[in-house]
Amino acid sequence: MNGTVYLVGAGPGASDLLTVRAARLLGEADVVFHDALIAEDVLRLASAAKKIPVGKRCGRHSTAQHFINKRLADAARSHRVVVRLKGGDPMLFGRAHEEIAYLTSRGVRVEVVPGVTAALAASADLAISLTRRGAARSVALVTPRVGKGERESRWVASVLAADTAAIYMGAGEAGAIAAALIGAGKPAQTPLALVEDASLPGKRVQYATLADLPRLVTRGGPTLILLGEVYREALASAGLQPLSRRAGS
Amino acid sequence: MNGTVYLVGAGPGASDLLTVRAARLLGEADVVFHDALIAEDVLRLASAAKKIPVGKRCGRHSTAQHFINKRLADAARSHRVVVRLKGGDPMLFGRAHEEIAYLTSRGVRVEVVPGVTAALAASADLAISLTRRGAARSVALVTPRVGKGERESRWVASVLAADTAAIYMGAGEAGAIAAALIGAGKPAQTPLALVEDASLPGKRVQYATLADLPRLVTRGGPTLILLGEVYREALASAGLQPLSRRAGS
Repeated sequence: MNGTVYLVGAGPGASDLLTVRAARLLGEADVVFHDALIAEDVLRLASAAKKIPVGKRCGRHSTAQHFINKRLADAARSHRVVVRLKGGDPMLFGRAHEEIAYLTSRGVRVEVVPGVTAALAASADLAISLTRRGAARSVALVTPRVGKGERESRWVASVLAADTAAIYMGAGEAGAIAAALIGAGKPAQTPLALVEDASLPGKRVQYATLADLPRLVTRGGPTLILLGEVYREALASAGLQPLSRRAGS
Repeated sequence: MNGTVYLVGAGPGASDLLTVRAARLLGEADVVFHDALIAEDVLRLASAAKKIPVGKRCGRHSTAQHFINKRLADAARSHRVVVRLKGGDPMLFGRAHEEIAYLTSRGVRVEVVPGVTAALAASADLAISLTRRGAARSVALVTPRVGKGERESRWVASVLAADTAAIYMGAGEAGAIAAALIGAGKPAQTPLALVEDASLPGKRVQYATLADLPRLVTRGGPTLILLGEVYREALASAGLQPLSRRAGS
């Protein structure tokens, strides 16, 4: 028996924001290896599959990657449909490269099923386009790496050069992110939207300025920082400027 | 009767790469206003709906935008489920802003359903991550605007600052894009993947260098230019370097 390993994007969280193909493959799957943060509703679609949690979405537990690779290859030897389910889209911050390289080098067939990434789901929640005619024609998608020297400051340059930026997996380092961006010349008054648990019933949106980012409080859910002039109108309507004044800025 | 206008992402082309929610809404829709480039297979999901083609995906026919806005508002007055179907994702290069602003100002309820954007579908076709640990942590998504002065050169800066870039709607201006990027300092030997009709049965992938971009031939389908070091290995394997030699560079 030679199965296929499907690297499947689980989308942003809501189970009906999986693609039709992803939902079908989960229904057909014999085994599903999934990231820790995949929603229960999504896993329930894999009703007949053995479900095996592996690793963290944010890429911690990196020592386990070789072990995951090996388990995927083993599973494809005894099962027809093996799904490797990843939050969002597999090809964007999904660390898919190691798994694809390992599997193809061992002759295991791999197919990738794209998914809705968090920046698009959060933008749908806000009903604010990442791009807007006359205001924004470039979007940077980045993961921050703070205080690690010149090579790692490329994420900062990327955010500064784009009209709109989506910063993934940065909520835990809000202070350092704001300092790095403002230090590099991004105006402190740049409007932003902080979106937690995008697409889920408990989603939460906060509008603020870049200077205020470190003072925003999150609940620990997946959080995206959206930054750019396209959020100025929403920030003004949300009336969050008092936060700056309270903090004396 | 007060209906809702759903701005729905149709995804990259394949009908099973719509989200489950998008497919359900198309099935429930009374009317579907769709871009010109939406695939027949996708439109077929809206079996009970009146289907009205409006405008072009690439944003030409801009004079008609006000007319589209008005038709959407009118439709919501007499129908429960009105779908505005846009290629890819509505909030990325989808020109959704005008429609949302018009509809909400007239008290029409709007919901946005995100979709799989072309850069992710093309990356799934290639099985090459846009980001790769140690090599790429930032991605620029841009639409080029060539030879229009300083303000419009921001797309160039954005591509140069990011590790990987996805250039949407640029196939018709390949020569000017390559000249603008190389002129701004992007190495002429930067590897790229040109992906036409991503996710569709007739998809076509060409690996080349930035210098060779103007010599690549497309068939007129939706085409995405993916640019960055993450494509170097695939370019080497594809053995397309002879193209440079033939052209004398």
